[in-house]
Amino acid sequence: LEQSNLEGAKALLVPVQPVDIAEAIESLPESMQVIAFRLLSKEEAIAVYEHLDSTVQQALIEKFKQQEVREIVDQMSPDDRVKLFDELPAKIVRRLLEQLSPEERQNTALLLGYEEDTAGRIMTPEYISLKETFTVNLTLERIRRLAITSEVVYYLYVTDASRHLAGIVSLRELVLSSPETTLDEIMTRDVVYVNTNDDQEEVAKIIQRYDLLAVPVVDKEQRLVGVVTVDDVIDILQDEATEDIYALGGVQSDGENYFQTSIVTVARKRVVWLLVLLLTNTVTGTIIKSQVHVLEKMAILTAFIPLLTGTGGNVGAQSSTVVIRGLNTDDMKDLTTKEVVIREMLAGVLLGLMLGTLATIWAYWLQGNWSVSLSVGISLVAIAILASVAGSALPFLFRSLGLDPALMSAPFITTAVDVVGVLIYFSIARTILGI
Amino acid sequence: LEQSNLEGAKALLVPVQPVDIAEAIESLPESMQVIAFRLLSKEEAIAVYEHLDSTVQQALIEKFKQQEVREIVDQMSPDDRVKLFDELPAKIVRRLLEQLSPEERQNTALLLGYEEDTAGRIMTPEYISLKETFTVNLTLERIRRLAITSEVVYYLYVTDASRHLAGIVSLRELVLSSPETTLDEIMTRDVVYVNTNDDQEEVAKIIQRYDLLAVPVVDKEQRLVGVVTVDDVIDILQDEATEDIYALGGVQSDGENYFQTSIVTVARKRVVWLLVLLLTNTVTGTIIKSQVHVLEKMAILTAFIPLLTGTGGNVGAQSSTVVIRGLNTDDMKDLTTKEVVIREMLAGVLLGLMLGTLATIWAYWLQGNWSVSLSVGISLVAIAILASVAGSALPFLFRSLGLDPALMSAPFITTAVDVVGVLIYFSIARTILGI
Repeated sequence: LEQSNLEGAKALLVPVQPVDIAEAIESLPESMQVIAFRLLSKEEAIAVYEHLDSTVQQALIEKFKQQEVREIVDQMSPDDRVKLFDELPAKIVRRLLEQLSPEERQNTALLLGYEEDTAGRIMTPEYISLKETFTVNLTLERIRRLAITSEVVYYLYVTDASRHLAGIVSLRELVLSSPETTLDEIMTRDVVYVNTNDDQEEVAKIIQRYDLLAVPVVDKEQRLVGVVTVDDVIDILQDEATEDIYALGGVQSDGENYFQTSIVTVARKRVVWLLVLLLTNTVTGTIIKSQVHVLEKMAILTAFIPLLTGTGGNVGAQSSTVVIRGLNTDDMKDLTTKEVVIREMLAGVLLGLMLGTLATIWAYWLQGNWSVSLSVGISLVAIAILASVAGSALPFLFRSLGLDPALMSAPFITTAVDVVGVLIYFSIARTILGI
Repeated sequence: LEQSNLEGAKALLVPVQPVDIAEAIESLPESMQVIAFRLLSKEEAIAVYEHLDSTVQQALIEKFKQQEVREIVDQMSPDDRVKLFDELPAKIVRRLLEQLSPEERQNTALLLGYEEDTAGRIMTPEYISLKETFTVNLTLERIRRLAITSEVVYYLYVTDASRHLAGIVSLRELVLSSPETTLDEIMTRDVVYVNTNDDQEEVAKIIQRYDLLAVPVVDKEQRLVGVVTVDDVIDILQDEATEDIYALGGVQSDGENYFQTSIVTVARKRVVWLLVLLLTNTVTGTIIKSQVHVLEKMAILTAFIPLLTGTGGNVGAQSSTVVIRGLNTDDMKDLTTKEVVIREMLAGVLLGLMLGTLATIWAYWLQGNWSVSLSVGISLVAIAILASVAGSALPFLFRSLGLDPALMSAPFITTAVDVVGVLIYFSIARTILGI
């Protein structure tokens, strides 16, 4: 391409999938992207454009001629178009909306009217809806007419006069039935559906739970307004998992790709948590300072502080990790909050006893004083139990307060356990050593 | 149900989805499960059984009569059956295999022959394959005959005489074409496929990337042997995310549901990591012990150890979290290893300078000695940079050694940074304070 071998480049691009072409275009220098894009046939161009990263989509839109923009944006599927509009400056969106064909403009305005991250925002309004009285033959004819513009043909929705969802027929059932059957004979009336303002994560869980290819979306009046398809749902599940993982690692996430943001944004995403944790750590420091008289008599006690706070933090991190993940999946469905916390506490007792015994032996080997060693061991058992209970209970507490349980994630638990762990250690050491 | 109101129970169970019935049955006391299960029609029973937890599946199989077992297991879809067989004792599997119809036995043996977590294991061999010369009409007839037993009808596969995959036709295209068209006119020849020994995670990524409903699986001789469907892939992506999250929290996972295992198993899953971390922490302790003479002169230095190790650990945990997640998704695809590590290092410099300044001020406020405060601040900058580099580089190193990058997860980085952090702190403090 860089040698201006346009025909050769065109030949290379033809047989691959749109998503692969999109990736190839993304890897080109910016000035080449428009040229490569113009080599695509009109139909391909739209499919490829839908797969491009939003930053590249934006860059291209600024370079396209008026006519090109209009064609591509008008032909995009409504859900992808709304995703693009979310990223563009409001001024450009307004201009683009005006250029859309009336039908597409209405579709887009409908989706933009719903809140972000809801079923209404991610659905496509281009579904095929039918009447109960249609025969299989008539339906197939209608599909042949409509299917070119519709993303979703594998499930067909039957609605009544007031657009209420009455039933669902799969293309499979349609093909298997004799031509003269009417839809009300073969349709399933017990339809799984979601509401426009349901959270996208809920929608994803429903599609996953019932093994669906798509789920219909109804508005407040129970009228069918759109369909969410399984391919969008996979991306949502993936993004939600990334968000959970970032939260567990103490990194803020807002749906942007971490690796495509500037260093300053990266620092901003991380510094909030670090400041909270720094603040908590200063409390630990203040506690240790108040115990300096103990340390002046027995400096060796310091040697075990990282062991105790470290192990306590790790035990707490384990508990909070499994509980937070459990709250976001179905894994915990059979257990009550109390049962989960008690399970974790028992695990903490077991782990504390094992690790405490080892730590006592190691501490004796390191410095030869049984009183100090016992202080370390007993503190470790207490800290492990406390960490398990805090790690498992705090996410539940946060959820019941209406906050995101992931805020009680590993880094926070680790740091919080530090504070209490140091307190426990000094109390036990002072008692045993009689300082 | 508990009042033996069998007819009532049956009526209640009828209109809901199999997965909901399965959940209702799971929540019943064990003695009731068989009774509830027998109320289902034969067809429903199979669908519900496929959705039960493997522990309940096993319990039921032991209570069923010979005839019931044979019927249900024979009718299950091959991929679900293999999942069940994976959980059952080898003896029972052998007995069940013998009772299967010859065709189903062959299907199952085929899948069991592939390694766990590969495309071959999770595929279903019940796809519909066709010849290029078939007309649309003939194909539709064939589908009507086969579709009852096949899970997958939305994509149809065209093979040549030696069962090599030649193309793919969607049911949508079939319905849209005129009856006399032959398949070679409408099929797509550029098919995305996977190999039997591809990892299931790779399969999931391909289905996700190309927005497919199913992907064909070919063996070493490029012959079509099965199909993996999108609903299985969603569960795989979910499980892999859980595995990653657990690894980041320092909990081993092996696909079992953490909340359904015994406390002893829980302790076993967690103790390995804790022991490794305990061992690392003892190194930190040994280093501190070797510096006791410094602490005896300047006990206040202890007050800042948790701050330094804590913050360093958190910075490192952030870097390793984003890098490990990046390795498991497509987010990092545009960057080289070097670029990622340099980005993280720069973020570490930025974060270190911000936090170091704050820590210096706080340290001075706490104890009024500028030399000590400067030691804390400078150490924090050094530790933040080191933690970012270690947190981002170690997962890459582990991957290039063929190990799971998730082993270099937050708890490990946190603890490793403790060791080096304490060393840096004492070196800097000794230099500045002249001890």
